[in-house]
Amino acid sequence: MNPDISRERENASFDQEILTNILDGGAEKTRRRREIESMVIRDPDFQHEDLNFLSRSERYDAAVKKSAQMIVKLREYGISDPEEIYSYKSVVKGLHHESFGLHYAMFLPTINSQSTAEQQRKWIPLAELCQALGTYAQTELGHGTHIRGLETTATYDPSTQEFVLNSPTISSIKWWPGGLGKTSNHAIVLAQLYTQGKCFGLHAFITPIRCMKTHMPLPGVVVGDIGPKFGFDEVDNGYLKLENVRIPRENMLMKYAKVEPDGTYVKPPSDKLTYGTMVFIRSMIVGESARALSKSCTIAIRYSAVRHQSELHPGEPEPQILDYQTQQYKLFPLLATAYAFHFVGQYMSKTYHRISGDINQGDFSGLPELHALSAGLKAFTTWAANAGIEVCRMACGGHGYSRCSSLPDIYVTFTPTCTYEGENTVMMLQTARYLVKSYKQARAGQHLTGIVSYLNEPQSRIQPQSVSSRPTVISINDLVSLVEAYKLRAAKLVEMAAKSLQMELQHSKSNEDAWNNTSIELVRASDAHCHYVVVKLFASKLSEIGDTSIHSVLNTLALLYALHGVQQNSGDFLQAGLLSVPQLAQISQRLKGLLSELRPNAVSLVDAFDYRDEMLNSALGRYDGNVYEHMFEWAKRSPLNHTEVHESYHKYLKPLQSKL
Amino acid sequence: MNPDISRERENASFDQEILTNILDGGAEKTRRRREIESMVIRDPDFQHEDLNFLSRSERYDAAVKKSAQMIVKLREYGISDPEEIYSYKSVVKGLHHESFGLHYAMFLPTINSQSTAEQQRKWIPLAELCQALGTYAQTELGHGTHIRGLETTATYDPSTQEFVLNSPTISSIKWWPGGLGKTSNHAIVLAQLYTQGKCFGLHAFITPIRCMKTHMPLPGVVVGDIGPKFGFDEVDNGYLKLENVRIPRENMLMKYAKVEPDGTYVKPPSDKLTYGTMVFIRSMIVGESARALSKSCTIAIRYSAVRHQSELHPGEPEPQILDYQTQQYKLFPLLATAYAFHFVGQYMSKTYHRISGDINQGDFSGLPELHALSAGLKAFTTWAANAGIEVCRMACGGHGYSRCSSLPDIYVTFTPTCTYEGENTVMMLQTARYLVKSYKQARAGQHLTGIVSYLNEPQSRIQPQSVSSRPTVISINDLVSLVEAYKLRAAKLVEMAAKSLQMELQHSKSNEDAWNNTSIELVRASDAHCHYVVVKLFASKLSEIGDTSIHSVLNTLALLYALHGVQQNSGDFLQAGLLSVPQLAQISQRLKGLLSELRPNAVSLVDAFDYRDEMLNSALGRYDGNVYEHMFEWAKRSPLNHTEVHESYHKYLKPLQSKL
Repeated sequence: MNPDISRERENASFDQEILTNILDGGAEKTRRRREIESMVIRDPDFQHEDLNFLSRSERYDAAVKKSAQMIVKLREYGISDPEEIYSYKSVVKGLHHESFGLHYAMFLPTINSQSTAEQQRKWIPLAELCQALGTYAQTELGHGTHIRGLETTATYDPSTQEFVLNSPTISSIKWWPGGLGKTSNHAIVLAQLYTQGKCFGLHAFITPIRCMKTHMPLPGVVVGDIGPKFGFDEVDNGYLKLENVRIPRENMLMKYAKVEPDGTYVKPPSDKLTYGTMVFIRSMIVGESARALSKSCTIAIRYSAVRHQSELHPGEPEPQILDYQTQQYKLFPLLATAYAFHFVGQYMSKTYHRISGDINQGDFSGLPELHALSAGLKAFTTWAANAGIEVCRMACGGHGYSRCSSLPDIYVTFTPTCTYEGENTVMMLQTARYLVKSYKQARAGQHLTGIVSYLNEPQSRIQPQSVSSRPTVISINDLVSLVEAYKLRAAKLVEMAAKSLQMELQHSKSNEDAWNNTSIELVRASDAHCHYVVVKLFASKLSEIGDTSIHSVLNTLALLYALHGVQQNSGDFLQAGLLSVPQLAQISQRLKGLLSELRPNAVSLVDAFDYRDEMLNSALGRYDGNVYEHMFEWAKRSPLNHTEVHESYHKYLKPLQSKL
Repeated sequence: MNPDISRERENASFDQEILTNILDGGAEKTRRRREIESMVIRDPDFQHEDLNFLSRSERYDAAVKKSAQMIVKLREYGISDPEEIYSYKSVVKGLHHESFGLHYAMFLPTINSQSTAEQQRKWIPLAELCQALGTYAQTELGHGTHIRGLETTATYDPSTQEFVLNSPTISSIKWWPGGLGKTSNHAIVLAQLYTQGKCFGLHAFITPIRCMKTHMPLPGVVVGDIGPKFGFDEVDNGYLKLENVRIPRENMLMKYAKVEPDGTYVKPPSDKLTYGTMVFIRSMIVGESARALSKSCTIAIRYSAVRHQSELHPGEPEPQILDYQTQQYKLFPLLATAYAFHFVGQYMSKTYHRISGDINQGDFSGLPELHALSAGLKAFTTWAANAGIEVCRMACGGHGYSRCSSLPDIYVTFTPTCTYEGENTVMMLQTARYLVKSYKQARAGQHLTGIVSYLNEPQSRIQPQSVSSRPTVISINDLVSLVEAYKLRAAKLVEMAAKSLQMELQHSKSNEDAWNNTSIELVRASDAHCHYVVVKLFASKLSEIGDTSIHSVLNTLALLYALHGVQQNSGDFLQAGLLSVPQLAQISQRLKGLLSELRPNAVSLVDAFDYRDEMLNSALGRYDGNVYEHMFEWAKRSPLNHTEVHESYHKYLKPLQSKL
């Protein structure tokens, strides 16, 4: 154990294990999570192999192997609780992905939720035995977030009772689905349904794409891997071009909409149910933001505790880089953010389960708010975590750039969350639509409930006034007052956006143009709303914490999160008259104080996230702090070191010398 | 040609060729640059091979091949002007690096500048014939930016007249030098010189590391590749562990400091000259920031002109995504930044040449300002470009994540500039040191000249006053007024940091602690100073532009750059009393207006950067806009598509089915 890092742990003011239990949701959950993690870590079949040293094809191969083993082992061990499956898989995968994750995440669930009893009887056993390995093919080369624009067609032919699937244009080629390229033999294809000469919009079709015996592509199916990406090397994201592919009428998922044998289309009773999955996945992504950022903070903060650099005092040893104020200012607000997002993730998960309980009993009333909340928070947290990971990486200096730090892997694996499951700007605008609608309802005298109830308040309180002439509301040491300030800022920005939209409507050709011409302000209003929600949830989590020393350190983190946000957005708070100019300087001073308060607890705060070395896979983020020894060992294994003299020497360098 | 993108070009209000000439520094320079680019593009030896499909070892192999060919061809064609060599190499390299770039960038220049005439006679021919292939080995596993902390030792042994080189600890292993791992047979090793029992600090030693005949590592030399990184796959960044490696006394570079045969140390007359190279490289990096960002903008803006998505008007075709205000708000400020940085890069290059002329005539007076400017601007521009590339990538939706967009490559190749040649935060603090020193000199009655002369002005003008009670200085449509506002903001923040430092000195144990405890504010002051310099240089470039239509579009870009910066830092401007609250809303409106003004010129503004398709290597950024066709062609070449059925099917998937 590196003595620098041991000393850090001795200096902590709180019991790290109690904090870990809080993060897990209870001591029993911590115990069971660790038990599951150990099962994987001890398992000789999952012995550590560094994917960084493999070619893309080898990485894909290794991922398929792992996924296949995982399926067998989960059954063997009888692990069936979704949370436990999640724990188990996350250790196996490490920082990467499953090669056929969509089989379990989308193919099976979609069959479960959207097919008839008869269809389920046929397809679920096939899928569970992995005879039918499936994926979910929605996005196309030319079409992403706006799914109504999809071009793939499924035309019903009553003479044979079949659908004929086609990709009529280049831009209609299915593109991106995970596991589509090489792994899957089936895909649920989203296509525009045509029957009796009319288009009835998007529907889902179970489409065999490869032979279940030979795995060769079926006639009319052009399928393959879309090529290397920023990350996700181990996943065969694929393309699919359909050329008059015929599937039986029974392959359309018909729980809701139907096509009768004669081609008659029967409308679905409601479309609210498909809505649910999307909301669920977005809610889960909030938790992913917390995990990606907390892993990055763990690596950067542990490394900063053992890395020595430069001089603070001439002649004295080089200090730990964690002692530099600029380093603290980079990392500690991100640490606070990771905690904040963790608690927001817990809240989203709880809320989702509560509301889906209501939905199962036919009560859809909570859905619009949850939809708006999950869209905005997905965008807010992924953007923040995405930028934060890179700050952590660069805070590790040059070594952060090495794959041995794992920070490049964390980044490239995480960054797609800003785009998939709804592009972030589009998500922010969906939340804005809800906020503007709520604002108008409040103005029309309706009483709002839930998270937007702040829009009820008389707006005269936050009219722009000269900054100096009115009392300010922020008390910079009081979390409750800060929550209030974030709330009033959000209210102000929602009002400004709504009024701006109103103004635009007077000049614009259409509602849509007015909306587009206000979209910068609308995104800003959503952002402020989400920021308020995060500060509020962090503050309310504190009220649940009994342990005094833990309450104290989390309170410091929450204050840091809130005040740092005020500083970064000081223009908004000044503009809304919530802050005075002299207070800005006080906030700068207070922030420095909070950094110093956190300094002795920083390492223990990341230890509390409780990531095993095997899960971080980072030479810089090791628990024992023995960074350099492990970097050297790792480097020796680089494929370029398999021979002392690389073949390029004989091919090009030696001949070059004779040419000069 | 995609009709969408042709239409964009028809709508431009200016002659793109004239703008290209301005960017190149004259029509003749444009002509010659294109001529050189065509030489590479037409050359059958450099036919396009996509590195994305190769393994790391193959990429390294391909890079060595290219580098070797390039050396031969440059001689063949007689290209020897440094700017022309730069143009030639940049087309050959594309978005990647040379495998032995440091041989020419550091090994040869260091021998040229730091060795005696006798040493030059021996080593320069060897290096020019590539018999001695060299690199520059400075950073160590445990030591980066702070070079005084390096641990490698060179101990003089008078009995054999040799230096004995050692890596005494794990943390002293040389780490990161490009070309060190497999390519080089020599390294200039920076080591602590010991002679006659005393340490005389860092000196440079030409150290043979591999046999010039067999290329095998020499006795006592442990050398290899440091393993995969975020990018730079084609470069063998290496490690070097020295175990009692003996080199002749003559291998120490002795132009300045010397060790006599008996071991007597002779001090160098001055250390100012080594300073120059560093300043040069940092100045050049400003230009790299402009190039990386302008390439990214070219890709994202062209793609946004051909990508259609969602609905603005129900029932109408999907609009180009460049018509969305949020997309313009992401991309156009970055486009303006790319132009700003381009002009700043031109200025830095001119200033460097002017000042190095002075230095050659013994006049060092301009060096401190240039040093401070190059440090700060290196940090300011690389941070902005780094974040901007990722905004461009994510503005391309999912497809930006594919390697076929080239945006991942641009990012991973560029991002190390934030760390190398001086870590950015350290750079900002170096500039801050100069600013604080200048501020104190001005307060002490000295009259400052040059870029910091604004610190001369009576500070009472910018004392904090209640925002409402004093006249504001910004006229939001006047670039001159905006430059003035940026200047006053910088003056204010430098003053605040200097005062805060003064306060800290009253509480702190030492000057160093006070500096550390003020470093957040110092970085902020530097940032504001650099921002002012950039706005000022952009504005003064405009005065050189004669063509009215080009002046007009560049003026729009400059206003956008300046106003966007005010909006993003509105707290600073409000705090300094340079802006009123109602003006903030006016700025938002004005920004929207500027986005609309730029919209018809956006594609032509990126065309003017004049990057050939072969240089961008991006399916999304193609000149002809035929994106989807080329993505599909590219994907088919993915190595995973070499067989229809991947071997993992037979190894794992088929067996899995029988186990379930």
